[in-house]
Amino acid sequence: MRGPASAKPQPPAPLAGCARLLAHCPDRSGIVAAVSGFLHQRGVNIIHSDQHSTDPEGGRFFMRQEFYLPGLEGSIEELARDFGREVADRYQMNWSVVLAGRKKRVAVLVSRLDHALMDLLWRVGRGELHAEVPIVISNHPDLRPAVEAFGVRFEHVHVPEVHDAPRGRGLTVPEEKMLALLEAPEDLPGCPVDLVVLARYMRILSPAFVKRFPQRIINIHHSFLPAFEGADPYRRAVERGVKLIGATAHYVTGKLDKGPIIEQDVIRVSHRHRLDELKILGRDIERQVLSRAVRWHLEDRVLVDGNKTIVFA
Amino acid sequence: MRGPASAKPQPPAPLAGCARLLAHCPDRSGIVAAVSGFLHQRGVNIIHSDQHSTDPEGGRFFMRQEFYLPGLEGSIEELARDFGREVADRYQMNWSVVLAGRKKRVAVLVSRLDHALMDLLWRVGRGELHAEVPIVISNHPDLRPAVEAFGVRFEHVHVPEVHDAPRGRGLTVPEEKMLALLEAPEDLPGCPVDLVVLARYMRILSPAFVKRFPQRIINIHHSFLPAFEGADPYRRAVERGVKLIGATAHYVTGKLDKGPIIEQDVIRVSHRHRLDELKILGRDIERQVLSRAVRWHLEDRVLVDGNKTIVFA
Amino acid sequence: MRGPASAKPQPPAPLAGCARLLAHCPDRSGIVAAVSGFLHQRGVNIIHSDQHSTDPEGGRFFMRQEFYLPGLEGSIEELARDFGREVADRYQMNWSVVLAGRKKRVAVLVSRLDHALMDLLWRVGRGELHAEVPIVISNHPDLRPAVEAFGVRFEHVHVPEVHDAPRGRGLTVPEEKMLALLEAPEDLPGCPVDLVVLARYMRILSPAFVKRFPQRIINIHHSFLPAFEGADPYRRAVERGVKLIGATAHYVTGKLDKGPIIEQDVIRVSHRHRLDELKILGRDIERQVLSRAVRWHLEDRVLVDGNKTIVFA
Amino acid sequence: MRGPASAKPQPPAPLAGCARLLAHCPDRSGIVAAVSGFLHQRGVNIIHSDQHSTDPEGGRFFMRQEFYLPGLEGSIEELARDFGREVADRYQMNWSVVLAGRKKRVAVLVSRLDHALMDLLWRVGRGELHAEVPIVISNHPDLRPAVEAFGVRFEHVHVPEVHDAPRGRGLTVPEEKMLALLEAPEDLPGCPVDLVVLARYMRILSPAFVKRFPQRIINIHHSFLPAFEGADPYRRAVERGVKLIGATAHYVTGKLDKGPIIEQDVIRVSHRHRLDELKILGRDIERQVLSRAVRWHLEDRVLVDGNKTIVFA
Repeated sequence: MRGPASAKPQPPAPLAGCARLLAHCPDRSGIVAAVSGFLHQRGVNIIHSDQHSTDPEGGRFFMRQEFYLPGLEGSIEELARDFGREVADRYQMNWSVVLAGRKKRVAVLVSRLDHALMDLLWRVGRGELHAEVPIVISNHPDLRPAVEAFGVRFEHVHVPEVHDAPRGRGLTVPEEKMLALLEAPEDLPGCPVDLVVLARYMRILSPAFVKRFPQRIINIHHSFLPAFEGADPYRRAVERGVKLIGATAHYVTGKLDKGPIIEQDVIRVSHRHRLDELKILGRDIERQVLSRAVRWHLEDRVLVDGNKTIVFA
Repeated sequence: MRGPASAKPQPPAPLAGCARLLAHCPDRSGIVAAVSGFLHQRGVNIIHSDQHSTDPEGGRFFMRQEFYLPGLEGSIEELARDFGREVADRYQMNWSVVLAGRKKRVAVLVSRLDHALMDLLWRVGRGELHAEVPIVISNHPDLRPAVEAFGVRFEHVHVPEVHDAPRGRGLTVPEEKMLALLEAPEDLPGCPVDLVVLARYMRILSPAFVKRFPQRIINIHHSFLPAFEGADPYRRAVERGVKLIGATAHYVTGKLDKGPIIEQDVIRVSHRHRLDELKILGRDIERQVLSRAVRWHLEDRVLVDGNKTIVFA
Repeated sequence: MRGPASAKPQPPAPLAGCARLLAHCPDRSGIVAAVSGFLHQRGVNIIHSDQHSTDPEGGRFFMRQEFYLPGLEGSIEELARDFGREVADRYQMNWSVVLAGRKKRVAVLVSRLDHALMDLLWRVGRGELHAEVPIVISNHPDLRPAVEAFGVRFEHVHVPEVHDAPRGRGLTVPEEKMLALLEAPEDLPGCPVDLVVLARYMRILSPAFVKRFPQRIINIHHSFLPAFEGADPYRRAVERGVKLIGATAHYVTGKLDKGPIIEQDVIRVSHRHRLDELKILGRDIERQVLSRAVRWHLEDRVLVDGNKTIVFA
Repeated sequence: MRGPASAKPQPPAPLAGCARLLAHCPDRSGIVAAVSGFLHQRGVNIIHSDQHSTDPEGGRFFMRQEFYLPGLEGSIEELARDFGREVADRYQMNWSVVLAGRKKRVAVLVSRLDHALMDLLWRVGRGELHAEVPIVISNHPDLRPAVEAFGVRFEHVHVPEVHDAPRGRGLTVPEEKMLALLEAPEDLPGCPVDLVVLARYMRILSPAFVKRFPQRIINIHHSFLPAFEGADPYRRAVERGVKLIGATAHYVTGKLDKGPIIEQDVIRVSHRHRLDELKILGRDIERQVLSRAVRWHLEDRVLVDGNKTIVFA
């Protein structure tokens, strides 16, 4: 994928031979020793290690280790299988091992506002985000030329406006269409996307749709959550007279704007800013917050603990 | 008033001969010309001038002018009377003229947590805040020695804990006691306070009490309003998993935590911070936000427009 | 000018009938009265007014007034002429009157890094910056397709690398070529540019070139000046072990990285960030700082006082 | 130690049974496995673990582990001895083990400005900083009452003003006096201080003095280093017209203002701020930056790598 202006793509960090182990389990003594002992025996060098315990007594233990072994790509499946048998089972771990070099496949859902989408495409084009974007889906046709200029496939799926979340138990008709596009994008049939980003997508997804991508849908909400959940946050921010406006990137769950927060930031405003100026200022915060959240997700830095995130940034 | 450690009070800014004109009125052409023409005729030199119009068409006009005239203190009443007659009436102005050199009298209401109170007393002692503190009132006796060490009068008024705002139409019994202290402090009987600061005062004031001090009670709320209105904001911030915590200084109105916001700020937190650590981090933000809001109020920089503030900072 | 993805250009603020008066002069009593009296007599409505005095006694007075009159475009020259005669001369003012609706013409000089340039083109395309970009000049051919995709003319002018500033008294040969392009861009021969932006342009301009655009060249320097003036600031930031990195937008003068600062900002970094990661983080700060500085310049908010700026933001 | 207003000291975090292992060594495979294996064998539970490698190939490895064992205080010396023999020697580690519960002894050197000192005493009094302050030494007598109000010993040591660093190879006469006070404070003769904080101490220490406290003297410099090294940074910041002012906490070395930076922060200023206002704004940043740096040092979170710090915050 090449954007029209990505003349100097950033050389990727040396990711060959690198992998990441993510795990969480009930906290008890000896986990770090067991994991690092296992990896050391296999000749693996641990580059980064982060851990977090929610409570020293009876809490939950979260871990991310980044490790390196020349030629690791060939032996990763065997290593993962052994890790499961020798370590993970013993500690009742919820775990995964991911090759750092594999680009994650990111689909973007968008409506009419293009700033968050464009920022993502740019960062991918420049190599700031280690990802591929196989498809952009929009409920409006407007952004087709902008997206296709990056060499990215664009699909328009009409979604009628409703003011509440879809009621039924199943997928809506437009969602079925979207799902087909996400699970088998044209360029690589059968290869589903790893992450769905809602880059100012102004429709509410059904719980059934969300369930297909657990902790794999990131939304950017244009307020400092939990302030101004729901519609029109900038207008409500003006009405309340706040002195800072913000943006929040979070995983999408069945409850609107209530999913685990990955990243937030704010910018100062004053009585001088009219609503339209606030929106322009907000765009800069939105795209920065979203790009940080997406980067952390792509680098496997985000673990979910109930309705909160642990970000090993 | 002298704090125990205020060894080197900041010399006050040269405020003699300075005054401030605050005004708001329906916006129309010629206001600035009329005001500055009037002041110029009197030989007054305008040092700072700020204005704001809520809407170019049919909005409201807000103005703050800081001006200087040697010996102004002697003629300020005459100047104000003439201004009213010659300018203000013509433009239906809501206005006031204030001598910059007069120290405002600030009473503080506090419960048990001392950080916001102590910070105010320090800044007053050092001359960072141009004010006097004639009295501190608390619903707990604990902070008496800390306050009296600054040479400031401390009064304990017991206020029973209730979980809702006072229901009745009138003042509560403790509020009557507090009001007597605020309207005629012992050191200067008959001279009421100019401003009441709620420095983590954990009781809800009745509408009747609030009405006595319109736009003259400043509260520091330990969250980024409108997120986490009401009780226990830090605990709820931890539960929601926010990535920034904040504080908000606002004028108190009859609606809890809904008054006009004067200042807000935030600080970054992470999954690593336990509740008690969040509270320590929050203290630094609370006292900075509160001290900025109080300073702006003391310097007559805050005008109220409905439920919003205009801060000419 | 249309960028490839600017599908939804922001409607411009209602600027018809608006103008800005900028003035500075020795401070004395009555200036505001004289200016606002003059404007009021002409039936003009003052929308915004900012002023600053460097010193109450014998300082310099700076003023920006934004005013409105239906059909002002037709009478602006007469109004300016009268203002000069009736007000400006009396107060020895250095002044100008500018129509808010006229788009300033901004040329961009760039080398190979595209992030600052692209950000500017995007913001112009979206209407966030009220400007036209008639030309982009680069000492490398690389960015031609990226620029032309926005419908903007691109010219490559080879500039040999030298490590010091040009020595001679006159323009260098490449500068003569650039000057010809800037003073008579193809699309509007004879109409020179209003502003030159150095968007990571890695060559040093001669004093003779700079003199042609006094206070009309804005550079983005990738450090928090005056720290790390000159080459390779990110590398030196890593070596010094700073905990924040920054960017500075300033007017270019004959002294490298020493011109009046318009805007600065910083972002937090840690020991974990390698040099290449710092550069990616820095890009976000660079483009925000540059875009704010350019916007303020376009809106005539920046006045220069010696080697400092007064920004009426 | 009790400050006059520390009515509600924060209950200390549960530190009993906790210790911290700090180590750095040439990076090679197996270090984490060896360390965590050793600790696990002893029945120790690792609570936090941080590590950093300066370079995957041939770099240096830094580690901090916080661990817990009921009754650890009794066996810590044996554990440390065994760790040295069984792990540290093998990896050529530079290491230490520290009990988290032991309060570090912090001496403060100060001149006339009290804000940074007072802030430290307050935070210690409230339990925000887990430390004791056995002594404050000043080259001025002014702050004696302020310090003694906290129950802290104050000593005045006259130090003649010189504009350059002390030239000779040895200690100056006043430094000899200070050293005697620091190495055997009255309340606990023979027990030297762990940390010396320069809280706006306006004299330059000799290299001989600094050498006595390697990586144990923290200075707060009132600028964003490396900008404005040396004297009068606020005045120079005004002259340069910067838009942010900052503060830097760093370890003191033989080279003035060039030691390893622990923490920095900035605050926004504008053309409106006079020098005295900048100094007041700066105080808030100074004391926050200093308190963060001191807290991290007290919690053994700062490791030094050449002229840089690694802060496991």
